[in-house]
Amino acid sequence: MAKIPVGVLGATGMVGQNYIALLNNHPWFEVRFVAASPRSAGKKYAQAVAGRWQLAETYAPHVGEIMVEDANDVSRAAAAQKREDCAFVFSALEMGKAEILALEDAYAAAGIPVISNASANRWTADVPVLIGEINPHHADIIPAQRKARGWDRGFIAVKPNCSIQSYMTPLHALAQAGYPAQRLIVTTMQAVSGAGYPGVPSLDIIDNVVPYIGGEEEKTENEPLKIFGTIADGVIQNAALPKISAACNRVPVTDGHTACVNLEFAGKKPSIDEIKEIWTSFRALPQELDLPTAPKQPIIYREEDNRPQPRKDRDLDKAMAVVAGRLRPCNVFDIRFTALSHNTVRGAAGGGILNAELLKHKGYLA
Amino acid sequence: MAKIPVGVLGATGMVGQNYIALLNNHPWFEVRFVAASPRSAGKKYAQAVAGRWQLAETYAPHVGEIMVEDANDVSRAAAAQKREDCAFVFSALEMGKAEILALEDAYAAAGIPVISNASANRWTADVPVLIGEINPHHADIIPAQRKARGWDRGFIAVKPNCSIQSYMTPLHALAQAGYPAQRLIVTTMQAVSGAGYPGVPSLDIIDNVVPYIGGEEEKTENEPLKIFGTIADGVIQNAALPKISAACNRVPVTDGHTACVNLEFAGKKPSIDEIKEIWTSFRALPQELDLPTAPKQPIIYREEDNRPQPRKDRDLDKAMAVVAGRLRPCNVFDIRFTALSHNTVRGAAGGGILNAELLKHKGYLA
Amino acid sequence: MAKIPVGVLGATGMVGQNYIALLNNHPWFEVRFVAASPRSAGKKYAQAVAGRWQLAETYAPHVGEIMVEDANDVSRAAAAQKREDCAFVFSALEMGKAEILALEDAYAAAGIPVISNASANRWTADVPVLIGEINPHHADIIPAQRKARGWDRGFIAVKPNCSIQSYMTPLHALAQAGYPAQRLIVTTMQAVSGAGYPGVPSLDIIDNVVPYIGGEEEKTENEPLKIFGTIADGVIQNAALPKISAACNRVPVTDGHTACVNLEFAGKKPSIDEIKEIWTSFRALPQELDLPTAPKQPIIYREEDNRPQPRKDRDLDKAMAVVAGRLRPCNVFDIRFTALSHNTVRGAAGGGILNAELLKHKGYLA
Amino acid sequence: MAKIPVGVLGATGMVGQNYIALLNNHPWFEVRFVAASPRSAGKKYAQAVAGRWQLAETYAPHVGEIMVEDANDVSRAAAAQKREDCAFVFSALEMGKAEILALEDAYAAAGIPVISNASANRWTADVPVLIGEINPHHADIIPAQRKARGWDRGFIAVKPNCSIQSYMTPLHALAQAGYPAQRLIVTTMQAVSGAGYPGVPSLDIIDNVVPYIGGEEEKTENEPLKIFGTIADGVIQNAALPKISAACNRVPVTDGHTACVNLEFAGKKPSIDEIKEIWTSFRALPQELDLPTAPKQPIIYREEDNRPQPRKDRDLDKAMAVVAGRLRPCNVFDIRFTALSHNTVRGAAGGGILNAELLKHKGYLA
Repeated sequence: MAKIPVGVLGATGMVGQNYIALLNNHPWFEVRFVAASPRSAGKKYAQAVAGRWQLAETYAPHVGEIMVEDANDVSRAAAAQKREDCAFVFSALEMGKAEILALEDAYAAAGIPVISNASANRWTADVPVLIGEINPHHADIIPAQRKARGWDRGFIAVKPNCSIQSYMTPLHALAQAGYPAQRLIVTTMQAVSGAGYPGVPSLDIIDNVVPYIGGEEEKTENEPLKIFGTIADGVIQNAALPKISAACNRVPVTDGHTACVNLEFAGKKPSIDEIKEIWTSFRALPQELDLPTAPKQPIIYREEDNRPQPRKDRDLDKAMAVVAGRLRPCNVFDIRFTALSHNTVRGAAGGGILNAELLKHKGYLA
Repeated sequence: MAKIPVGVLGATGMVGQNYIALLNNHPWFEVRFVAASPRSAGKKYAQAVAGRWQLAETYAPHVGEIMVEDANDVSRAAAAQKREDCAFVFSALEMGKAEILALEDAYAAAGIPVISNASANRWTADVPVLIGEINPHHADIIPAQRKARGWDRGFIAVKPNCSIQSYMTPLHALAQAGYPAQRLIVTTMQAVSGAGYPGVPSLDIIDNVVPYIGGEEEKTENEPLKIFGTIADGVIQNAALPKISAACNRVPVTDGHTACVNLEFAGKKPSIDEIKEIWTSFRALPQELDLPTAPKQPIIYREEDNRPQPRKDRDLDKAMAVVAGRLRPCNVFDIRFTALSHNTVRGAAGGGILNAELLKHKGYLA
Repeated sequence: MAKIPVGVLGATGMVGQNYIALLNNHPWFEVRFVAASPRSAGKKYAQAVAGRWQLAETYAPHVGEIMVEDANDVSRAAAAQKREDCAFVFSALEMGKAEILALEDAYAAAGIPVISNASANRWTADVPVLIGEINPHHADIIPAQRKARGWDRGFIAVKPNCSIQSYMTPLHALAQAGYPAQRLIVTTMQAVSGAGYPGVPSLDIIDNVVPYIGGEEEKTENEPLKIFGTIADGVIQNAALPKISAACNRVPVTDGHTACVNLEFAGKKPSIDEIKEIWTSFRALPQELDLPTAPKQPIIYREEDNRPQPRKDRDLDKAMAVVAGRLRPCNVFDIRFTALSHNTVRGAAGGGILNAELLKHKGYLA
Repeated sequence: MAKIPVGVLGATGMVGQNYIALLNNHPWFEVRFVAASPRSAGKKYAQAVAGRWQLAETYAPHVGEIMVEDANDVSRAAAAQKREDCAFVFSALEMGKAEILALEDAYAAAGIPVISNASANRWTADVPVLIGEINPHHADIIPAQRKARGWDRGFIAVKPNCSIQSYMTPLHALAQAGYPAQRLIVTTMQAVSGAGYPGVPSLDIIDNVVPYIGGEEEKTENEPLKIFGTIADGVIQNAALPKISAACNRVPVTDGHTACVNLEFAGKKPSIDEIKEIWTSFRALPQELDLPTAPKQPIIYREEDNRPQPRKDRDLDKAMAVVAGRLRPCNVFDIRFTALSHNTVRGAAGGGILNAELLKHKGYLA
């Protein structure tokens, strides 16, 4: 099978770099178009990221040679699509919300599907917020989205915020087994890479904790309701539960968001052992389809008292697994546990790529 | 006034060093007796801590000259007491629980009051667990304790675990104002100094979080009930509330424990502004008596979104204040907030010294 | 004595904040004028630094009330001088070199002495680069500077780069005792606060070392030659020695620059014990005059194998002392040692204040 | 080819764990024997390391099932050899020097070759200290060693200290190209994993640098002379040069030792460009033989100003490459540069495995 040519918008930023690195040697997709700010436009990608490349992993040699386009000029991607260099784009744009809304719209209107990492479109009612293991069926709002907008090939699909990814799959696995959650109190300890680059100043985080991340608690509390929502009348209607209260903290960790979760079930309550069994045996569509970026086991449970730990567990299963531990009864609610996911892989570029694989399978990227 | 001569048990360990440093130039107390393990016994204190002294602050020159005694040999302290070198002792013993129970008993039985930092006696029913601003009246169980044990001058008083100190005073201030808490969900991010020295290996904590501290969650959940308890029949009877669920994490911070607290009130609910007013105007017996180690304002509230932070706030008011922030409504309970206290000062040696000042004022150290 | 009213240029930046904090309760000087970028101008200082204040120490309440002026508008400081609110200024300007050169000149031309932390004027031939303990006599170039520029009251004096402060005083003490250095190989491990705020991104420094600091090695190699230079013909003529080769690294430390030094003497070679004696007994003009910010003992020598350490030693003697250790013979040169100084206090604002105290004593700020 | 069965002594310690992890799926060797302290003996390996396993990578399932033997009992390994489960052993013993000397001798005497990571035998005159790319010919002292000791199959070969590995290959490449070094001044910034586990207490290293590592400077200065030495009269005779002066520091980095090197050549001096060419084109016996653990390119040179950095460069080429950068003229000597190697892979277990591959190739493990 010839690889599908893809583009990356915002390719020189931190999430963009992650996309470029993770797509290196991808079996289905090949980066053949990159766009970024006007400052980088006109340079070869290798030049544009010289001295700004943040990762230990590198980019494919052929990507280094691609001329960076101005992401604001949709006609460049359209031309690339015409010459079969850009079937769709991954959006890692870093701009104001209004600009991203307008620009992602323009790409989709031009016939270029947009798989986005940006938060701008997460609350657009007909845009699915996808986690492959939880709500792949939300992709099926795409025909309605296209129809409403008058688009033929283009569409927009996004992924949720990185802060919720460690516990959403565990919650979903429980709900699916008949144990939906009613109320959650969540405290996160989030890695600095979540703020991008340059992001968190070192003076703010060495020997320190910052008990606040702007906008993060609202995202953490609300996005799950859309992900657990249902499609009706051409929009995604939010679930009513669970009610979530979040406290989001920044800690001196490079990668890997950890969450301490207290959970009250809506109805009947499983035993601790039953939950472990539900989690470790959980498999979903990405696993059934054996998608290239899907983790083999979406939820890994560690029995050791002192796990999961970001440095030791974030990279499990290509950094795409959720790692849970410390499951025990809660004195106040029903259960409590700790969960971890890699924020720049599972929670950003890796999650976006998995979404693209899913959308390809479902025929939306044909 | 001549200073009261005091002793420090476990003087070469980390909490012991904190006692020695904080008692340097104390207006009421002067260290004239130090005891530690047999390994250190017979050396001058300066020799015993050479290469092991952990603090930026130093010890008083005269303390460096004191010969370290074997802490297991109570007769040494008794002799010191006789020659008026040791009116009472601060216990920073690091041993098994059974050994500490036996040894603290033996000191008290020998007529030497023990102000202890150890956890061993926290659940002894007639031993008060004191926080100066909350339950100074618990000191008045001392006569009953003495009578029950047949002790004349000796007694044992302890301080609680460092993990709870950041939010106990805020809870107490609210309760006192008519707003007791019913249920709490607490997630802590604790400093490595809480584990003593050598304590947490650096390989476990650089670029990492450890989601577990042995025994800490149980202490965090149960000790508040004794502190909020009442004296009856010669023992302290636990309060029934609040019900607490705690998740205790170790983070890469040297000093300062941070707690994210979600709180449900038992009865009527104050407004956010009312709570801030209650906290910032709260004063208690240590402030009324203007005790040397008492903070001027026990609860400092920071209005900035991103505070309190351990590195920037832990040292406020001689590191004896509790610093709160981020007070806001909780989606699930009534309110949520973040609180911080310095674990080796307020939460350990400084808290012990404040207890001694209080007990001195109440006449138990006369 | 009434305090001398002083101004701080760049008062909202990181070094500016350090000046403000260190001048709180200063016995001679009182901040009565603050200036910063146009963005801050027109706000009260408290407003201007709200959410940007980096330090655990705070500013004097009266400073919070001062209206921030635009630092580019010299007439504001001139007016303040007229109403006796600004006898001289500390410059912590953060701009391009050309702008700083022009602006510091303008202040001096307007009759306002400038004690600067900026690097712009360090290579202006008639501007002294002062370390109080080493070359206080360089201040005596001020009359020539004034004459050459046609200034009456104004002048410019600067302090050197923070990277060299840990070993310059030890070198000077040896030279003064008859043991000048000929060649030095220096490797520094520098704190992130040296880069200001936001400065070093946390993603660059957690679990990492950055082996490069732009421009730092050149400063480290050249500035000592001017400091050791002599006044002749109205300019400072560089010393010829020592020849220095520096490698400057950034490490995950908040404050405190550490240097590993290998040294070859120009002539006769002292013994290890002799050097320790020279260092610990070294006193200079700031000590003789007992200037308020002068450390009692400019060079503290630690005998422990594993000292100096930034976190444990940087704050010694008001963070104004240099702390040396590990003095031992060198296999290749004559001796080697490790030295430490607090980069934002001794190496920045504290050093500037000490310079002002010295210049006041010498009558240049009358 | 059937895999060669190997044993690991000290298999539960940190270096031992690294051996076990790196040998997982090794194409030539298979772990079939593990030994450790009496405390672990009699347990399955999985049990013995439960809660003590430090790595993100895991061990082969079959290794988890192996019963741990007492490393002090050489007869266990001899029995394993007889049943073809242990052709030779990797020694990661952590004991006193005398015990290791005796024990490694005993294994070799029992006919079991010992590839050791321990420092005990590094100064035994007929024991080679091997770096595969530098002195593979030193392996040829093994026949003399066997003869002198009366051993038939057994022998001892060791690897050098981790602190020198980053610059030894660059030095060797230069020497081989006709540019031997005469004098070196080296300052290292070493990772905490170099101290094993629990190793460096976190309180010693958060926000800190420790300017001392016991014994490390002596090893750093002396071991290169043996590695550059020549075989004569059945022993390895040290090279006379280069003369090295080292300052070894511990920094808050998990893995990866960085060295700043100042170098004076013995004779003619290559240009900067020539050196880069020498380094990047350098290949040696492990590359020629394409040994499984050999890096493709032993010395990687990074042109970016701010590289190498431990977190971003330590894992290059299976963590077996040396990464150099910042090559520039030295003001005092001839050149200076910064070099990095992964201390627990290239500098410990990976280096040991490469040595075994080399010794296998040379027929000593037949």
